[in-house]
Amino acid sequence: MTFKDATPDEIELVMQQAWKAFHIYRNFSLKQRAGFMRMIAKEIENLGDDLLKVTAEETHLPDARLRNERTRTMFQLTSYADACEKGDWLEARIDTAMPERNPPKPDIRKMLVPLGPVVVFGAANFPFAYSTAGGDTATAFAAGCPVIVKAHPAHARTSELIANAINKAATVCSMPVGVFRHVHGVSNSVGKALVEHPFTKAVGFTGSLAGGKQLFDWSNQRKEPIPVFAEMSSINPVFLLPGKMNESASEIATMYSASVTLGVGQFCTNPGLIIGIESSGLQTFIHDLGKAIQHIAPGTMLHSGIAKNYSEKREEALMQEDVHLVAEAEAAPKALQGQPTIATTDGKTFLKNPVLHKEVFGPYSIVVRCTDMNEMLEVARTLEGQLTATLMAIENDIKENDELVGAVKNICGRIILNSVPTGVEVCLSMQHGGPFPATTDSRFTSVGADAIKRFARPLAYQNWSNEFLPDELKNENTLEIWRIVDNKLTNSSI
Amino acid sequence: MTFKDATPDEIELVMQQAWKAFHIYRNFSLKQRAGFMRMIAKEIENLGDDLLKVTAEETHLPDARLRNERTRTMFQLTSYADACEKGDWLEARIDTAMPERNPPKPDIRKMLVPLGPVVVFGAANFPFAYSTAGGDTATAFAAGCPVIVKAHPAHARTSELIANAINKAATVCSMPVGVFRHVHGVSNSVGKALVEHPFTKAVGFTGSLAGGKQLFDWSNQRKEPIPVFAEMSSINPVFLLPGKMNESASEIATMYSASVTLGVGQFCTNPGLIIGIESSGLQTFIHDLGKAIQHIAPGTMLHSGIAKNYSEKREEALMQEDVHLVAEAEAAPKALQGQPTIATTDGKTFLKNPVLHKEVFGPYSIVVRCTDMNEMLEVARTLEGQLTATLMAIENDIKENDELVGAVKNICGRIILNSVPTGVEVCLSMQHGGPFPATTDSRFTSVGADAIKRFARPLAYQNWSNEFLPDELKNENTLEIWRIVDNKLTNSSI
Repeated sequence: MTFKDATPDEIELVMQQAWKAFHIYRNFSLKQRAGFMRMIAKEIENLGDDLLKVTAEETHLPDARLRNERTRTMFQLTSYADACEKGDWLEARIDTAMPERNPPKPDIRKMLVPLGPVVVFGAANFPFAYSTAGGDTATAFAAGCPVIVKAHPAHARTSELIANAINKAATVCSMPVGVFRHVHGVSNSVGKALVEHPFTKAVGFTGSLAGGKQLFDWSNQRKEPIPVFAEMSSINPVFLLPGKMNESASEIATMYSASVTLGVGQFCTNPGLIIGIESSGLQTFIHDLGKAIQHIAPGTMLHSGIAKNYSEKREEALMQEDVHLVAEAEAAPKALQGQPTIATTDGKTFLKNPVLHKEVFGPYSIVVRCTDMNEMLEVARTLEGQLTATLMAIENDIKENDELVGAVKNICGRIILNSVPTGVEVCLSMQHGGPFPATTDSRFTSVGADAIKRFARPLAYQNWSNEFLPDELKNENTLEIWRIVDNKLTNSSI
Repeated sequence: MTFKDATPDEIELVMQQAWKAFHIYRNFSLKQRAGFMRMIAKEIENLGDDLLKVTAEETHLPDARLRNERTRTMFQLTSYADACEKGDWLEARIDTAMPERNPPKPDIRKMLVPLGPVVVFGAANFPFAYSTAGGDTATAFAAGCPVIVKAHPAHARTSELIANAINKAATVCSMPVGVFRHVHGVSNSVGKALVEHPFTKAVGFTGSLAGGKQLFDWSNQRKEPIPVFAEMSSINPVFLLPGKMNESASEIATMYSASVTLGVGQFCTNPGLIIGIESSGLQTFIHDLGKAIQHIAPGTMLHSGIAKNYSEKREEALMQEDVHLVAEAEAAPKALQGQPTIATTDGKTFLKNPVLHKEVFGPYSIVVRCTDMNEMLEVARTLEGQLTATLMAIENDIKENDELVGAVKNICGRIILNSVPTGVEVCLSMQHGGPFPATTDSRFTSVGADAIKRFARPLAYQNWSNEFLPDELKNENTLEIWRIVDNKLTNSSI
C-alpha cells in the first residue's frame, strides 16, 4: 500500500482545521486532555496484533521489541496524562496584590499555556514510541496543542493505523475536529510546507542531523520564527577510567558488546565511541569486545536507506588513516543487515579527524586509545554535544579526575556511571536532550513529563478578578496544584 | 570620554577568560553565587551619586527616574540572589532505583546546570536595570554562567562604572578571573564576533527588532546554534470594550494620557495601539485623551538616534492614508525631544496597512476605531506577538466576548485587566516576554526569577553514588530545596 503526498491544498485545509481546533482545545481542562490521552492508549491497545504485524513488515523489528515498544507508548500516554492532570508542569505562580504599597503592587498570576498547533515528524527507529502517537504527540496534547503528524514514509501504514486510533479516541472524547491531523509525504516539500505554515507554532522531530537541521533552518527563516525541538545526532561517548579498567575490563567488554549491538545499533543512545587509556586493561577490553562482537549475528535494519547508510558510513570510518578494524560479526550480513563492527584508533588520530566524531547509525563503535589522562581530557573537550556520556570508573577514578568529570558533564544531557547509555527510562528525572547537535535546544527534554514544557509558554494575568481567572490560578485551588504563592510553594487555597 | 572598540584579539582573550572561569564558577554553590550578586548590588550602591550624574548626562533621564531604576536594579540582584539560593528554579527531580523491577529501574536525578558564557547586550532605555548589571547579567550569574557585556554605546561611561563595580564585587567574593568581562563596541562587528565565538553559549538582548533579529540570525547560523533571548518589539494593544467605555471613557483617557507619555514613551510596554468600537464613549475617550496630551510637555529622549527615529516613525505613521492626527503636545519640541502624539484611524485602514502595526518608540499612540466587535476581533487576530495586551472591560464585556478574550491571550505574554501596561513588577509571577516579534522565545521571561532558566539546561545523573552527586541532588537535602522525588514534591531528605 502506498499513500499520496499531501497536496498544498490539503495541507492548507489541515492547518486551518488545526488552528480552529486550537482555540477550542486550549480551553479544555487538564482532566479532559488527560482523558483524551488515556483513550488514545486504549485505542492503540484495541488495534491488537494487527498493528504489530503491519509494523513488523515495515520495520523488520522483532515481535518482542514491538510489544515492548507498544507498552512503552501506552505508558507514555498514560503517565504523561497523569502528569498533565497533576499540573506541576504549569509552573503556576501567584503574587497577590499589595494595594497599600507605594506604588501599589498589582495581583499577578502566571501559568503555562499552549503555543499552538505542533507539527511532529516521527522517528524511523521508534515506530510507536517516538512516532505518530509517541512522546512528541503525547506531550503536545498535554500542553493543550493540536498535533499534525507527517507520517514517516518508512512506516506509513503503521502511522495510518495509529492515526486512526487517535482519531477514534478524539471522537469518543468529543475533541474538536482538527485536534489531530495526519498527512503523508515522501517529498521534502510536504514537511517544508507544514513547518512554514503560519499556523504552525512549534515543531517536534526525531531523526538525522541533516533532517533536523533543515527543519530548524526553515523554522528560523520564517517571518515568525518558531521553536523546534529536534533530537538528532549523538555518539554517546563512554570513558573507560584507568582504575576501573584495572579491575573489570572483561565484564565491561561483555556489557558493551550487548549495548553496541542492541536493536542492531539503531538507538539514539548507542555507544558509538569508547575512550580508554593505553594499558593492559584496555588491551583486554578491546580483545574481549572484539571476540564477543564476532559472535553476534548481523540483524536486519529498519529499512534499506538506513542499511545503506550504515554500510557506507561504516566503510568511510574504517577507511580513515590509522583506523583499524578490531572485529566484525563472523556471519556475513545479508541484504538490509547491519554487521556488528568494532574499530580502533589512537587519540591523536581521533582528535584531528572530524569524520571519526560523526555518528555511524548502527551496530558500530570505535575504541580510541589515548596515551594518558591529558589526552582523554582533550578528547572530552573536543567532542560535540551528546545525549549521553558514560563514565566507567571506580571511586578513585572520580576523585582524581575532577577536570575530566567536569568536561564530560559539559557536553551531555545525561551522565551515566558504570552502566550503558542504551535504555531510556520514561520518568520525570530523565533528560533526553543535550547540547547541539544532540538536539536543537538543550534546555528541554523529549522524554519524561517535562517534555510537555517544550510546547507551552507562560502567560501572566495582571489585575484580574478571581471569577475570570482559569481554575489553575483561582484563589480556591480546587485542582490542588502546587503553586508558588507570594514566594511560598503550596497546594492550598489562598 | 570615548572608548575604543574591542579588537578581535581582545575579544578572543575575553572569551578565553570567560570559558576558563565557566569551569570554575559553574561549581560554585548557590550560596556563593548569591553572595556575589548581593555584593554587586552593594558595590553599585557604593558608586553613589557620581554614577547618577554620569548616567543623567548620557541618557537625559531625570534624577528621580534614575534613583528608582538604581533601586530596582539592586532589588533585582538581591531578589534573584534569594531565588538562586532557594533553588526552586533548579527543577530538581529524583527517581530512586527499583532494582527488583524487570528490567531494573536505575536511580536517576536531574537538575538545571549552566549553559556557559552568556553575552549580554544592554538596553538604551534602562541604563541600569536592563544593562550592564541588569536582569540578564543577574540571572546568568544566578544560573552559574560567566557574563560578557557589550557596553551600550549610548551610555558607555555608565556601563564602565557599573562594570568596575561588578569587577570589584568579583574580587571581594574571590570569583574566578573572567566571570565578568566588559567590552566596548560601536561597530556591529564587535557584537557579531562575540555572538559567533564558539565559547559563547547564549545571548541576552534588549532593544530593537532589527538588532535582536540580527543577533538571532547570527546565533542560528553558527556551526553550533545557541539560544538567544531577545526582547525586541511590542506595541502593547489596549482593547476598549463597549460596556467599560459607556461607563468610564474620561477616566480611561486620563489614565492613558499618562501611560502613553511616561518616560517620554520610552518603555517596551508603552501602549502604542488603542482599539475601540465607534460610539459616543469612544468619541469622548479620543477627545479627552487628545486634550490631555496637548498639555503634556515634550521630554528629552535618550539619545539623538532614538529622537530621530521617533520623529521619522511618527511622521511616517501620520502620513499614511486615512490616518489622522488627534492631538499633539502644544509646546513645540526642542532638539532631542519627543512630542506626545495621538493619532486615529478606522479598523479597515488598520487591518490593511502593516506600517500601522509597527512600533513607534516614543510618546505616540494610535486609536483604532472599529465598526463593531467582529472588526475588533479581526484586529486582535491580525496582530503580531506582544509583551502585553490590555482589556478595559466590565464584567459583562468579558462574559460576552469569549472569542476576543481568547484571541488576545493568544498574542501576548501578559494580559492586563483595567490598568496600564507600563510598570513591570519584578516578581516571580511576572511574564516579560511573548510571541515573536515581542521576543525570540516566548517560552521564557526576562523579568522575575524564572529568567534564570533561560541560561540553564537539565543534566541527569544516572546510577551515581550519593557521595559524588551535587549537594542539590544528594539524599540528605541539606539545602532544603523543593524536589520532586518519585513523583512527589518534597523538601525532605530521602
